[in-house]
Amino acid sequence: MVLKSFVEVRPDSHFPIQNLPFGVFKPEPNSEPRPGVAIADSVLDLSVISSAGLFDGKFLNNSDCFNQPNLNKFLELGRPAWREARSTLQKLLSADEPTLRDNEILKRKALLPMDKVQMLLPIAIGDYTDFFASMHHAKNCGLIFRGPENPINPNWFHIPIAYHGRASSIVISGTDIIRPRGQGHPTGNTPYFGPSRKLDFELEMAAVVGPGNGLGRPIDVNEAADHIFGLVLMNDWSGTTISPWIVTLDALEPFAIDAPEQNPPPLPYLTEKKSKNYDISLQVSVTPAGHQETCIVTRSNFKNLYWTITQQLAHHTINGCNLRPGDLFGTGTISGPEPESYGCLLELTWNGQKPLSLGRATRTFLEDGDEVIFTGCCKGEGYNVGFGMCSGKILPSPP
Amino acid sequence: MVLKSFVEVRPDSHFPIQNLPFGVFKPEPNSEPRPGVAIADSVLDLSVISSAGLFDGKFLNNSDCFNQPNLNKFLELGRPAWREARSTLQKLLSADEPTLRDNEILKRKALLPMDKVQMLLPIAIGDYTDFFASMHHAKNCGLIFRGPENPINPNWFHIPIAYHGRASSIVISGTDIIRPRGQGHPTGNTPYFGPSRKLDFELEMAAVVGPGNGLGRPIDVNEAADHIFGLVLMNDWSGTTISPWIVTLDALEPFAIDAPEQNPPPLPYLTEKKSKNYDISLQVSVTPAGHQETCIVTRSNFKNLYWTITQQLAHHTINGCNLRPGDLFGTGTISGPEPESYGCLLELTWNGQKPLSLGRATRTFLEDGDEVIFTGCCKGEGYNVGFGMCSGKILPSPP
Ligand SMILES: [Ca+2]
Ligand SMILES: [Ca+2]
Ligand SMILES: [Mg+2]
Ligand SMILES: [Mg+2]
Ligand code: NI
Repeated sequence: MVLKSFVEVRPDSHFPIQNLPFGVFKPEPNSEPRPGVAIADSVLDLSVISSAGLFDGKFLNNSDCFNQPNLNKFLELGRPAWREARSTLQKLLSADEPTLRDNEILKRKALLPMDKVQMLLPIAIGDYTDFFASMHHAKNCGLIFRGPENPINPNWFHIPIAYHGRASSIVISGTDIIRPRGQGHPTGNTPYFGPSRKLDFELEMAAVVGPGNGLGRPIDVNEAADHIFGLVLMNDWSGTTISPWIVTLDALEPFAIDAPEQNPPPLPYLTEKKSKNYDISLQVSVTPAGHQETCIVTRSNFKNLYWTITQQLAHHTINGCNLRPGDLFGTGTISGPEPESYGCLLELTWNGQKPLSLGRATRTFLEDGDEVIFTGCCKGEGYNVGFGMCSGKILPSPP
Repeated sequence: MVLKSFVEVRPDSHFPIQNLPFGVFKPEPNSEPRPGVAIADSVLDLSVISSAGLFDGKFLNNSDCFNQPNLNKFLELGRPAWREARSTLQKLLSADEPTLRDNEILKRKALLPMDKVQMLLPIAIGDYTDFFASMHHAKNCGLIFRGPENPINPNWFHIPIAYHGRASSIVISGTDIIRPRGQGHPTGNTPYFGPSRKLDFELEMAAVVGPGNGLGRPIDVNEAADHIFGLVLMNDWSGTTISPWIVTLDALEPFAIDAPEQNPPPLPYLTEKKSKNYDISLQVSVTPAGHQETCIVTRSNFKNLYWTITQQLAHHTINGCNLRPGDLFGTGTISGPEPESYGCLLELTWNGQKPLSLGRATRTFLEDGDEVIFTGCCKGEGYNVGFGMCSGKILPSPP
């Protein structure tokens, strides 16, 4: 029988009791940020639950990790504490548990309507690394920029390639994005300065790092999952936008599937006893500037990743690099094999050569006023485990 | 007449009253980290000076910025507060000011022998960007890796090129560096996994960012200096090591010189009314593993930079990127025009082709047990403004 909550959950909700993703929010504009979990259309305030003494397991009893402005302290505690929090909260929210269900005062204080609170960045991000882990994306980029001979560099199949990204400009879903300006050099003559002409979205997800490791002490690939708290949706455009709710690997476990076979086989430090992906449907919609209708522009899936997030983490630490709680690992653009599943406009319009029809508008790249919305969801038997959405709108460059 | 302190300062000291660089230290292993300034062979504990009410200017009166475990809060206050701190401290430490000089109890509490305290990272580094601003270095890298035709890409003269680096692995001078491991691919066949074979140092300096800017609000190049608190020595090897003392731009002002002429002239957003470098002599010494003697391997100078640190900052923000207090900007390897002034072993040994003689040892790249020491100093009339040192020793890779 499917676990049920006393909180009413619509069948299409992303946030049933099976999910319980973690985020950080402010109940009122002037209140302190605090952690919460999403349940149906509500947010459960974990600072209230913690202060009421309801986290009574051995890891969280007496911990102040839910009286913090971000989840970093909770992330540092590791998987045993994460599992304890999840089981405490699933019990507390279940239909047949009276503790919270029948305590009207506590319920009013702890369960807040999601549309009345302000969601914030859930983590203080020390470092952000963006991988390049979808083979279809790597191939398309190679075809577009380097041509049909060897579109994918041979090293791509040996190394989960990544680059360091900027942590300061990671923002929460709903934040407007100002079109960047910079130098361009289209004609081979002197460079010009001006607004970006090919502003794109990149459909990605990102892993949130848990305890981490000391300098010079790599994490074994078969223990890497214990260092990943969960996943968010991520749009890596100008700055980087993430969704507010971190869906835990524990909630995603029912949707785990085998990762694709890797050939050539990876080196031993990247060889997993069991190589997992997750079946997460991803979708990107765009509302073109000045239009009402929102058009779906791509449907992809997290399972299109070639390199797993655990391989990414093992590779990142094998050189001795230290990870800290709250570090973020982007997957890179997640493109599938079919043109309808490409994860960015560069691929979808083949670098602007094939404009995309969006209702009454057409687009090659993003225009000022366009709004981009990512969603992601796993379909279970009688419930979903979803990510909510990750959205943002393009504002024009400064004059 | 040269300003003098009641604290005795040896003529070759890096830290006379004209310098007063800022750092963070622990007096005892169990004490809380707190800010200090270096004066001769002592550290002045700013938490003690602040608690004694001696910061009585309008910006720092009542501020708790010196009761913090790092300098970030002080950096956020901006240049007026930095100047006020400097003038308060220069007065307090001057030979003819009795307040501290004649208060034995306060002096014993506030002035601690530098060799008895533990220096820590002075800032919490949100993001670290490494530039590539020395033309001689860019040229040598081009000659080595791409050959004599166009060793420098034309875009290098239009854009202060940079990449995002990793903040988590920035360590304080004196920290051992474990040789990294990773994949190599020397022969064109399958990649191997093993310790880095060409471990190098990179002689750099780094700018510490002050107040910073909001997303989408670039900093004008002519106001950029107000966002740079000071400079440190930096060795960008495996992880990144910085020197503990941040020498302020105010202390460096007597050593400001014209930056090199730039041709082609930069775009307007990079054009400075006055383009400044600083005359800072830099030196790298190596103590080879198992040897006693330390050999100087290069002598360079900060003035060899083509792109100024203010241009770097303006370029970094022109796309809308936000900087936060404590962000770090590496200059890139600072090579001069002569072979004796090249800033890394790659250049000094021409990628291992010309081994370097270090007393009774020879080196192409760094070997396990080698210790590398950077120093930097400005020579004034009767005093120095120095950076102390930035050192580290290579430990072998894990087996
Ligand atoms: Ca990306
Ligand atoms: Ca460097
Ligand atoms: Mg990108
Ligand atoms: Mg480097
Ligand atoms: Ni970073």
